[in-house]
Amino acid sequence: MAKINDNYLKLPGSYLFSTIAKKVAAYAEANPDKKDEIIRLGIGDVTRPLTPTIIAAMHKAVDEMADEATFRGYAPDLGYEFLRKAIADNDYKARGCEVEADEIFVSDGAKCDSGNIQEIFGTDNKIAVCDPVYPVYVDTNVMAGRAGTYDEKTGTWSDVIYMPCTAENGFAPELPEEKPDLIYLCFPNNPTGATITKDALQKWVDYANSNSCVIIYDAAYEAYISEDNVPHSIYECEGARKCAIELRSFSKNAGFTGVRLGFTVIPKDLTVEGTRLHALWARRHGTKYNGAPYIIQRAGEAVYSESGKAEIRGLVGYYMKNAAYILNGLKDAGFEVSGGVNAPYIWLKAPDGMSSWDFFDYLLNKVQIVGTPGSGFGPSGETYFRLTAFGSYENTVRAVDRLKGL
Amino acid sequence: MAKINDNYLKLPGSYLFSTIAKKVAAYAEANPDKKDEIIRLGIGDVTRPLTPTIIAAMHKAVDEMADEATFRGYAPDLGYEFLRKAIADNDYKARGCEVEADEIFVSDGAKCDSGNIQEIFGTDNKIAVCDPVYPVYVDTNVMAGRAGTYDEKTGTWSDVIYMPCTAENGFAPELPEEKPDLIYLCFPNNPTGATITKDALQKWVDYANSNSCVIIYDAAYEAYISEDNVPHSIYECEGARKCAIELRSFSKNAGFTGVRLGFTVIPKDLTVEGTRLHALWARRHGTKYNGAPYIIQRAGEAVYSESGKAEIRGLVGYYMKNAAYILNGLKDAGFEVSGGVNAPYIWLKAPDGMSSWDFFDYLLNKVQIVGTPGSGFGPSGETYFRLTAFGSYENTVRAVDRLKGL
Repeated sequence: MAKINDNYLKLPGSYLFSTIAKKVAAYAEANPDKKDEIIRLGIGDVTRPLTPTIIAAMHKAVDEMADEATFRGYAPDLGYEFLRKAIADNDYKARGCEVEADEIFVSDGAKCDSGNIQEIFGTDNKIAVCDPVYPVYVDTNVMAGRAGTYDEKTGTWSDVIYMPCTAENGFAPELPEEKPDLIYLCFPNNPTGATITKDALQKWVDYANSNSCVIIYDAAYEAYISEDNVPHSIYECEGARKCAIELRSFSKNAGFTGVRLGFTVIPKDLTVEGTRLHALWARRHGTKYNGAPYIIQRAGEAVYSESGKAEIRGLVGYYMKNAAYILNGLKDAGFEVSGGVNAPYIWLKAPDGMSSWDFFDYLLNKVQIVGTPGSGFGPSGETYFRLTAFGSYENTVRAVDRLKGL
Repeated sequence: MAKINDNYLKLPGSYLFSTIAKKVAAYAEANPDKKDEIIRLGIGDVTRPLTPTIIAAMHKAVDEMADEATFRGYAPDLGYEFLRKAIADNDYKARGCEVEADEIFVSDGAKCDSGNIQEIFGTDNKIAVCDPVYPVYVDTNVMAGRAGTYDEKTGTWSDVIYMPCTAENGFAPELPEEKPDLIYLCFPNNPTGATITKDALQKWVDYANSNSCVIIYDAAYEAYISEDNVPHSIYECEGARKCAIELRSFSKNAGFTGVRLGFTVIPKDLTVEGTRLHALWARRHGTKYNGAPYIIQRAGEAVYSESGKAEIRGLVGYYMKNAAYILNGLKDAGFEVSGGVNAPYIWLKAPDGMSSWDFFDYLLNKVQIVGTPGSGFGPSGETYFRLTAFGSYENTVRAVDRLKGL
């Protein structure tokens, strides 16, 4: 008799962004006159079109697929060399980080990688996560049976170590008291938009090396860093090659949310119990994955061309102008607000002691603005709210005007 | 202290096709004068370019991504409605199968789906597989800790039920004596190219329903069926909606091995321990996956247009001409050979009692032909060898001529 994976049944409710989508759809149906007024600053989805260099690269690759002489079948499991080399050269070597092309695993996005990476670790590992946190880290560990039981009152899992990120510590976690095995870190942070200095990150690397922990470092938002002394990669820290996996995405720098491309770095120096994690992830990729589409990998390569880089800077600049507009507008209006300087996320305290979901409903009903309730990211997110800079400039201005008028 | 998933260490050697690739590369390096003579009929990778209708659809979709008004960000987790509806109408309703668009989960390929599907089942399920079998089914269950221990002598896992497919039973398995929980079936079969009649498949569906088993039915090669009375979908059988998941691919009908598109069908009638598997897979998709690229889903839609369908028939016809050429040529040359009528695979008995890997080395060294050793697919594959019809016609003719001259 077949048995289900009953860890799935422990998950409370549906995936956060599915819940939001359903609530917005229900509101739009109940209020058809307001439907067109809705401004979505909730899910972190981009709105700007792909840039000319990337479009040209994709057209070229499509044409190659039409010709027997240039047609490509299965891609190499770990990604085409042309893309892996462009990544190693531009994202790492140009910054003085020692990462080789064959330590890069190309994938269809950082969400998939951040969900799948836990598979190469035993179910008896204890994870530590920032609180609030991107839900995928926790949910995928729940599915694997690593999280224990859920306490509805506190919104926490019995076997997960939570590291609170609060206004008091500048939304950067302290080293945990209880020793974890795997540590998920994300900087610039989703959802708070906070960052970490290089010195502070070095402390995490040293801690991981001293305690034989592995850090899973999500750097999906590194392109948004505008300040010096904020590391773009964990490999800027000494010793990180021995303890850290890094996840990257093309979604937020190049607008690839609907294109799907990302990568994971696993240095060959990183061993656990005498086994190279590189070998385990290569085996997973080879067995369960068949490579990112050729056309998409060529689009990724174009991101690193001179014209591609210039266009991407323009794209990021566009969203960062939105971020600054939201940040300053809300500050002026008297909101308690942070983030938005090195990240496309603005982290907002709900006024008058409102809960996150109450504020969500309030904004949707009162000014037709969709944001993301902070409590959806963890208990320390309660009473907070995330807005994103990924809308159009015009919508962003309209949204801030509405918020100011509340 | 971090711990690895030590199930990975139980896996013997590397993934079958990686091993073959390494052997061929080593041969090419050691024999530079023979390098250009190598004909690859090993891995099931297509060689024909994409057809005009699909190319046009992709160019159009690329252009849409360049325009703010038509740009698409995140796709719906489960796939765009336009594609899911085209699949439901053409692959199912047109054949009288009751499958709705919202029972279809679009993905980046059947390899990923067939590797990931086991996740929604508990680790205490016992799987049954055909022997020989596509290695992904077994390897992914090993990684999840469901396979027990490996016996090098027999090449089998202690907790897996093997269902031998031999010349004696026409390479179609008998119902297992020991009761499994999950049953993997693949028809038309990879690697043997064998098929199953509708009546025979109905027996499996009845067996699964009587014993509360779930059938994972891999129909990636259904487009190659040329004979009547061979079911294209398991949902042609009565009661299959209550016990069967079906996996499909665009790789082998439309030449999408480097494009990456597939889908999984989970009927809403299919419950295990009172839970709909549809809900569990939806949760997995929503949490660990971010949808197939918009451009690729438009390419998939084009496969179902009138011109797309005609082109795909031409593509399949091209490869089936190869299959017939191999099958008949090898028969003429006195080989014991089967498959190739409803599948792009030809299953060949190595001559003179040679082992599969000895025959692999013999063919590579003697006539520079790369095939796949049958023993790589399981113990009953020993002394067999798989050739594929996916080469060019010219290379296929050259290969058969060489094999005839052995």
